[in-house]
Amino acid sequence: MTVEATEPSLVTAAVLIIGNEILSGRTQDTNLAYLARKLNEYGIQIRQARVVPDIERDIVEAVNALRDRHDYVFTTGGIGPTHDDITADSIAAAFGVDLVVSPEIAALLERRPAPPEIMASRMRMARIPRGAGLIANPLGPPGFHLGNVYVMAGIPRVMQQMIDSLAGKLRRGATMRSRSVTAFLPESQVARRLGQIQQELPQVDIGSYPFQRDNRYGTTLVMRGSDDAALDAALGAVSRMIVELGGEPLDVQAG
Amino acid sequence: MTVEATEPSLVTAAVLIIGNEILSGRTQDTNLAYLARKLNEYGIQIRQARVVPDIERDIVEAVNALRDRHDYVFTTGGIGPTHDDITADSIAAAFGVDLVVSPEIAALLERRPAPPEIMASRMRMARIPRGAGLIANPLGPPGFHLGNVYVMAGIPRVMQQMIDSLAGKLRRGATMRSRSVTAFLPESQVARRLGQIQQELPQVDIGSYPFQRDNRYGTTLVMRGSDDAALDAALGAVSRMIVELGGEPLDVQAG
Repeated sequence: MTVEATEPSLVTAAVLIIGNEILSGRTQDTNLAYLARKLNEYGIQIRQARVVPDIERDIVEAVNALRDRHDYVFTTGGIGPTHDDITADSIAAAFGVDLVVSPEIAALLERRPAPPEIMASRMRMARIPRGAGLIANPLGPPGFHLGNVYVMAGIPRVMQQMIDSLAGKLRRGATMRSRSVTAFLPESQVARRLGQIQQELPQVDIGSYPFQRDNRYGTTLVMRGSDDAALDAALGAVSRMIVELGGEPLDVQAG
Repeated sequence: MTVEATEPSLVTAAVLIIGNEILSGRTQDTNLAYLARKLNEYGIQIRQARVVPDIERDIVEAVNALRDRHDYVFTTGGIGPTHDDITADSIAAAFGVDLVVSPEIAALLERRPAPPEIMASRMRMARIPRGAGLIANPLGPPGFHLGNVYVMAGIPRVMQQMIDSLAGKLRRGATMRSRSVTAFLPESQVARRLGQIQQELPQVDIGSYPFQRDNRYGTTLVMRGSDDAALDAALGAVSRMIVELGGEPLDVQAG
């Protein structure tokens, strides 16, 4: 189920996570979940995410596929000073533009003195695609944006600063809100009636998440959408269903 | 950098994570990192991952894009009994085949008695694409595989049982091993020489991961590849570089 058809003001995004360390399992990505919650505060909904290695053709292909089909693309990773940081080069290639040195980033980097060799390496981070704007970063060199593509660091606390700095600067669409309720009923017991409730309330996206706790089967039912009245109606219908099936609605939450 | 060009026996995979809850940030995915480590034990390397919502056209498009370009595709999520579990339907659509009831899964589901309505819902989990084989699951209904696409549960402990059951049943390629070493040197200080080492050892994939600890900048250098002699050479070269730059090679690990 999607709310797309009934929500004209939906603003969509894709997330592109760049880095071998995520695909090898060395690093557990946490940026996607953070971005999902933060972008929802901004009224932007993530509709797809991809993880690609530090290979230019893979990054270019993903950026071009995603930027055509979403209002925004947010990338994380690959903007440091080492040989494996190829995101700026790849974004420039994706847009068919040159890399240029940003005088603002260069000035920032030059504030902290360093021997020539180190400064030269650091200056790699001043290279941005021609025409790109900057994304503020109080912790270090800025990110950048070009067209609808926003390029951020991979280190979570740096990425978080960058996305925070974009508050109020992006097109705002519907914010999704949620209701959830849990019951110690197995999923197969709620499945048929839950499907009926979903059909009756197509503007709400109802998800069913089974779990096992203290040797009992349970299900958490999550309703998401931008219409509070419809969400409350869904929560009411699902809670009544739980009672009618002999369960107890537990841990009701609204968000 | 990639080892593709120098590693003829590379076996590649893509991972497709299916579920609105991952894209909304409600659930933190951990399956990708687990699969990366487990598949590497099996000699299979993940080269891309995607996260898509519970929308059939999105799943179909991703499955078809990924199965053409990788030796294997592993999916997680969407194989339960509720209306939002549409992975089996989507895989059947991607391959252009019917959904059929698996007699083996139906027999398994019928072992546990239930009223007709619940049994009918549970039987949704017996529907698999025509021609699919089963993936064993001691915790519940099996997953399935069709062509090079392996369809598994989203719940981590169930997914883990399923991928474990595939041990020895997949084509085996090179296993990547790693060396890593950490130094309290900022990335920009190691960047130039590290790039030279990478150029001299193209069969090793060298990654550089900066961090800040106790108010000091540091960098962890990770070398991955299938050639232990080359990995040891890279570790030696990187360790010497650290010493020459005035640092100390710390926390050396081999994996």
